[in-house]
Amino acid sequence: MIKVTVWNEFVQENDESWPERRDQMREVHPNGIHETLKAILEEDEELQVRTVTMDMPECGLTQDVLNDTDVLVWWAHVAHDRVPWEIAERVNDHVLRGMGFIALHSAHPSRPLQRLLGTSGSLKWREGDFCRVWNTCPTHPITEGIPEYFELEEEEMYGEFFDIPKPDDVVFISWFSGGEVFRSGCTWTRGYGKIFYFQPGHETNRSYYNPYVRKILKNAVHWANPTKRIEKIEFPFAEVSPEKKRMESKKNNQ
Amino acid sequence: MIKVTVWNEFVQENDESWPERRDQMREVHPNGIHETLKAILEEDEELQVRTVTMDMPECGLTQDVLNDTDVLVWWAHVAHDRVPWEIAERVNDHVLRGMGFIALHSAHPSRPLQRLLGTSGSLKWREGDFCRVWNTCPTHPITEGIPEYFELEEEEMYGEFFDIPKPDDVVFISWFSGGEVFRSGCTWTRGYGKIFYFQPGHETNRSYYNPYVRKILKNAVHWANPTKRIEKIEFPFAEVSPEKKRMESKKNNQ
Amino acid sequence: MIKVTVWNEFVQENDESWPERRDQMREVHPNGIHETLKAILEEDEELQVRTVTMDMPECGLTQDVLNDTDVLVWWAHVAHDRVPWEIAERVNDHVLRGMGFIALHSAHPSRPLQRLLGTSGSLKWREGDFCRVWNTCPTHPITEGIPEYFELEEEEMYGEFFDIPKPDDVVFISWFSGGEVFRSGCTWTRGYGKIFYFQPGHETNRSYYNPYVRKILKNAVHWANPTKRIEKIEFPFAEVSPEKKRMESKKNNQ
Amino acid sequence: MIKVTVWNEFVQENDESWPERRDQMREVHPNGIHETLKAILEEDEELQVRTVTMDMPECGLTQDVLNDTDVLVWWAHVAHDRVPWEIAERVNDHVLRGMGFIALHSAHPSRPLQRLLGTSGSLKWREGDFCRVWNTCPTHPITEGIPEYFELEEEEMYGEFFDIPKPDDVVFISWFSGGEVFRSGCTWTRGYGKIFYFQPGHETNRSYYNPYVRKILKNAVHWANPTKRIEKIEFPFAEVSPEKKRMESKKNNQ
Repeated sequence: MIKVTVWNEFVQENDESWPERRDQMREVHPNGIHETLKAILEEDEELQVRTVTMDMPECGLTQDVLNDTDVLVWWAHVAHDRVPWEIAERVNDHVLRGMGFIALHSAHPSRPLQRLLGTSGSLKWREGDFCRVWNTCPTHPITEGIPEYFELEEEEMYGEFFDIPKPDDVVFISWFSGGEVFRSGCTWTRGYGKIFYFQPGHETNRSYYNPYVRKILKNAVHWANPTKRIEKIEFPFAEVSPEKKRMESKKNNQ
Repeated sequence: MIKVTVWNEFVQENDESWPERRDQMREVHPNGIHETLKAILEEDEELQVRTVTMDMPECGLTQDVLNDTDVLVWWAHVAHDRVPWEIAERVNDHVLRGMGFIALHSAHPSRPLQRLLGTSGSLKWREGDFCRVWNTCPTHPITEGIPEYFELEEEEMYGEFFDIPKPDDVVFISWFSGGEVFRSGCTWTRGYGKIFYFQPGHETNRSYYNPYVRKILKNAVHWANPTKRIEKIEFPFAEVSPEKKRMESKKNNQ
Repeated sequence: MIKVTVWNEFVQENDESWPERRDQMREVHPNGIHETLKAILEEDEELQVRTVTMDMPECGLTQDVLNDTDVLVWWAHVAHDRVPWEIAERVNDHVLRGMGFIALHSAHPSRPLQRLLGTSGSLKWREGDFCRVWNTCPTHPITEGIPEYFELEEEEMYGEFFDIPKPDDVVFISWFSGGEVFRSGCTWTRGYGKIFYFQPGHETNRSYYNPYVRKILKNAVHWANPTKRIEKIEFPFAEVSPEKKRMESKKNNQ
Repeated sequence: MIKVTVWNEFVQENDESWPERRDQMREVHPNGIHETLKAILEEDEELQVRTVTMDMPECGLTQDVLNDTDVLVWWAHVAHDRVPWEIAERVNDHVLRGMGFIALHSAHPSRPLQRLLGTSGSLKWREGDFCRVWNTCPTHPITEGIPEYFELEEEEMYGEFFDIPKPDDVVFISWFSGGEVFRSGCTWTRGYGKIFYFQPGHETNRSYYNPYVRKILKNAVHWANPTKRIEKIEFPFAEVSPEKKRMESKKNNQ
């Protein structure tokens, strides 16, 4: 059983100041985008999923919750700066010790991802393009069951130059009808933890109902599930190699 | 002319609470380790070097200083947590916009490097080993003039597992007489900026008087000198491709 | 069930012209080094192992054998140039289509590995060193169950500069008592196939009886087992995107 | 002065069996595509350019020519299998010893590139698309003077999945109007040599008259110019470290 925590800022779904967007988003994600994501992941019986939102104490990410999380999934858009850096720091610590981290769509400049990658996540954008997602790593576990490409009728265009560290693998590259390309599925390792960024998921589009996107999300959780976790990051003093002492003592005894 | 700023925490050189260490360090670095580094870099007439220390306002790293810096060299050991995260953030911003950053020896867990790389920089350590530095990238600009290996009579052992992101290039791997290995020269790119970490430089050892270490420091500054700098990190809205419009208008006119 | 084929040049075991070496090698590997390797892999019930040797027709690597092989393990030392390039080419084709390939010890300049990597595999060498193998990828599947380092009482020293393409992961770095370091466990992907090079295994040393080496060999076979295989490498003509046609036809109907 | 050799198979320019193609190609490249490329590179006064073609003895690539070449530029399309593997092997040897190698457009499955990379270079293709080339490494020397993207009115579409080893840098990603993406500018290092693959350059299109393409070709030659060349690839026996002997002798003298 893999324990997944889905984090959502949960702001636009409740935003009285922009009712059109709120209503559009509620139409696609009636209970908030975190519940949409939870429903996807729960299609996989090996995943045990909980959701948390930014309005909870400590943004829902207490030490207890993170200690009980194998993979953290992060959706955010308009409120990155309302997540305290202390929370980003805490997520960073858990990832370095093994927890998986999946950043979705507009989480590209979210604080946890910025803290893990060191880059700004800057990119070009425009709403409402047709998007073709190309599979550029056909043997990667994240692309299991995914064809050479799949199409999203309408997505937000995200385009290069994308300010990210060189990925371990560029799993997907997206083509947008307006003329842009984007490294849309990228993996990194930091410490003992695995990280995946995945572009689809604009709040008013139906990408999370695409069967390939759903499969990728489930694949990614399996891939990011830690093989090893450590209790604490340490800077240990190292004794001189016992072997070296043994070799020297051999020599002295000759 | 490349403008270099050498940053030193400048703590142990003045530490009344540990006079032996202070005196040992002062013996090797009479005017502080930043002045030793400055003297090395000034051997190269293309480098214009200034020094700053942590006790200055804003740790010596005002926007004016950073705007006037092509490459920032960072030496620190005991006072990482006395550098405010705001300063690390500011350094991060300048690196992403093009400034080079060279982290030396015990700067492995310094806040600017942690902020840039996302990892802890944890490693094993022990003072007083013989160290052989192997050149594992003989065509890299940083190894120009460096033989297949060189030796340091006494250095602090830094050993694997070294918690860093996969480097762009592992330029050096060090061998320590006590039985350890260490990826001792590593490069990364973040945004428009280049980053180099280099292991030699324990405060009481004479590594900075080794001619190969001196050559490497000068090579690294040249390598990290920005080819391009940007004013500001932006997330631009992108118009639909004019070409696409042109192609459509062609079609409509047919 | 993973089907493994162990390939051995099987020359030194039978070499009348150097009887000392033959006898030393026969002492460690009574039935040839391929049988030693087979016995290791057969400890794992999921592996079904066959051996082939260079003296067989087509070097034992007929299309039938390769079609029936998930992972090919290659040990060779003195007779690299007696493997026809056609065989290296055939192995290359199977790896690009998904077959795993594990090159052991002195296979570093073997023709199949040269053909897959493009480099010479040149390195420094000396028989009879103490070797410490450091685990530099603690979360990699190949290091499952492997501690931070393990020691080999006597191995051939292989040292940098090692002429290989930048590995996907440097899983191990070896320390030798004579003063050298070596990237001793390296992974690459080529086409649909995974490749692992692993340094231990000099013909007269007992490294293949070390429990960690044995574990690594079994881990590596599991890791290299293909997730996907293709029938044939193709250069397909691509129709214009149906979506593009659909979009254009929409427009024409407006 | 950088010595450049431009190699062209020079087949379609003279092909009586397909006169339309021959004439189209001659219209764009009156003296053969090698002369078009030579003229581009000669705009840069630091480049000294010669051309050779497949019909010359040893395909024009004698040891003398290669010894006198800093960077080899390769254009080929229909006659890959008429270049003997011995020539590919010879080019490989020179690249590993430092010579730069630039493979253009349909050279993706050429034997020298296959021999250097180990992969098939397979991809999707279709003639006659509009192509937008995105700059995904704005600080790379190859993109000096190149904007965030440039456009080619008509090019052959080359699309993913592109079977290549993970590049050191993906310098360009191309967008095609028909719906495809392609890693169109890729760099690798093999031994002491640098390699660049660049997609534009279909025989009947005018891409080599695009000012950005021309700039990139000149930049790439400068980038691939060797910083170091070696005489011969060797597998040297290594003496035990003199330092180790010295340390032991110190100990014995105590």
